Amino acid sequence: MRRAVVASADALGVSSPNPAVGAVILDAAGDVVGVGHTQPPGQAHAEVMALRDAGDRARGGTAVVTLEPCNHTGRTGPCAQALLDAGVSAVHYAVADPNPSAAGGAQTLRAAGVAVTGGVLEAQVRRGPLRYWLHRQRYDRPFVTAKIAATVDGRIAAPDGTSQWITGPASREHAHRQRARLDAIVIGTGTALTDDPSLTARYPDGTLRGHQPARVVMGHRDVPAAATLRDGVAPLLCVRSHDPHAVLAALPDALHVLVEGGPAIIGAFLAAGLVDEVQAYQAPMVLGGGRGAVDDESVATLPNAHRFRRTAVEELGDDLLIVFVPR
Amino acid sequence: MRRAVVASADALGVSSPNPAVGAVILDAAGDVVGVGHTQPPGQAHAEVMALRDAGDRARGGTAVVTLEPCNHTGRTGPCAQALLDAGVSAVHYAVADPNPSAAGGAQTLRAAGVAVTGGVLEAQVRRGPLRYWLHRQRYDRPFVTAKIAATVDGRIAAPDGTSQWITGPASREHAHRQRARLDAIVIGTGTALTDDPSLTARYPDGTLRGHQPARVVMGHRDVPAAATLRDGVAPLLCVRSHDPHAVLAALPDALHVLVEGGPAIIGAFLAAGLVDEVQAYQAPMVLGGGRGAVDDESVATLPNAHRFRRTAVEELGDDLLIVFVPR
Repeated sequence: MRRAVVASADALGVSSPNPAVGAVILDAAGDVVGVGHTQPPGQAHAEVMALRDAGDRARGGTAVVTLEPCNHTGRTGPCAQALLDAGVSAVHYAVADPNPSAAGGAQTLRAAGVAVTGGVLEAQVRRGPLRYWLHRQRYDRPFVTAKIAATVDGRIAAPDGTSQWITGPASREHAHRQRARLDAIVIGTGTALTDDPSLTARYPDGTLRGHQPARVVMGHRDVPAAATLRDGVAPLLCVRSHDPHAVLAALPDALHVLVEGGPAIIGAFLAAGLVDEVQAYQAPMVLGGGRGAVDDESVATLPNAHRFRRTAVEELGDDLLIVFVPR
Repeated sequence: MRRAVVASADALGVSSPNPAVGAVILDAAGDVVGVGHTQPPGQAHAEVMALRDAGDRARGGTAVVTLEPCNHTGRTGPCAQALLDAGVSAVHYAVADPNPSAAGGAQTLRAAGVAVTGGVLEAQVRRGPLRYWLHRQRYDRPFVTAKIAATVDGRIAAPDGTSQWITGPASREHAHRQRARLDAIVIGTGTALTDDPSLTARYPDGTLRGHQPARVVMGHRDVPAAATLRDGVAPLLCVRSHDPHAVLAALPDALHVLVEGGPAIIGAFLAAGLVDEVQAYQAPMVLGGGRGAVDDESVATLPNAHRFRRTAVEELGDDLLIVFVPR
């Protein structure tokens, strides 16, 4: 199952709106003979990819899948049927499918005489790549990560506006690796006009990574025709609103969205209760002035502060990455 | 030697201006028979305390000391002579005494036939409790720690001024434990007037710890007669200046000083290049407005940022303590 989880990470960003699922096929002797993850919409699911990888060796073997195999014929055939056709004799999955139209795969398999076990490493799988799709199933909106990249004193730019680079190369590479697994990055028109960002996922040498997240600009000002965001490398969506709900409603297929700023945009998402995770990159410097990382006028007094629980601390070169979830 | 370092920590704050030294006596069989640390000025040094603890069992034994035993008669007799009188046959120390008037202890002991080894775990001991005195010997000023206790977005108070409590009980206890090992805490008149702080080192139940650091208030305004700082629990020093150099010059006996704030005071010490360590307590909350942790107008642009190297990350309940030294 751990191997299936690792495989599923490669589906992040590309499988949406379908879940990022991973599958591993063991042959009758228990050796791994196939690994797969969900392909882009309309293409093969994880089980089918792993079965293709395994070929005839799947017969009499075991399938290990992060999500219960689907039972319905959408743009692709049902995975439960594919597993039966391949002749696997056992299926282990972690999380039952909460989607009524797709659920029932376990039952179909059992009825055909396959030994089926659900709930394998379920808690761990729920915190992995499947997390974003499960969030969307439950709350009908994408999982939202707010990113802050600031100094020890919480500044994202010096008084004269200079901000490149506050974080170091290890942090920036981490951020680009994450971008390649996202559905969309949200910024405000202020950031779009001031920084002319590309929001692309790049390798350290500047070349583009395989998957590019959609660029979402919220606010009432126009993104100029010459802006880098209009270069066609990734889809651009302009949401002429300051309401974070409107932004998420405009992304019906997105599972995981990153809110990058500026400070007022992050504040608006926090004030709306629409932040599921905060990623705070902290650079080892003090500016003593300049722009703060978050503007949110709704917090006037300490008892109204946005409170979090720390879930991870990671060293990224000279920087720290500290991850929080709402309390 | 590690045991001697641990013992020396109890001398911090109380031994100043003398170094916080620790000593351990082993008997001829190699068993620990005495442990001691430097007492307040005019009282016994670490070696004498450890010898008293050991009594006759020191004869033929070994003394392990963090600093080379002193050779001069100040307010107390020379420790080298005390070790000879006790009949120890070997002395191990970590750091040679850089003070010309006190040095020569190793030579005196060797001349008397004692086996002397210097440099034992020296690098480790130099980073321990001896660090502050070594700093003063070298730079002729105390070691300065700047403390920041802020939110993830670098705020120390909400827009309405509320700030109690941003950090949690584990952070506050950590801070009080440290206060009991300091010579002085520096604040500005603004903080003195706004917060009416006590700056005392207390146990979680509110009772006072054994040692209290001096209270130092810098700035031109008066500390009111009714201020808690005037309650006599610890010495109060008012330095009518905004110059951090003037503050440190007013503390000729201090080895370790904590600068607590407000933001402009921390900024002034940073701008003056007088911060040797930053302790940043980070509370897991976002305020989105209110006072920033540091005000320093001297940094107008990113290339002028104060840059640090992270030396430690510690979890204190829900908070993080991140320690930095200047780059």
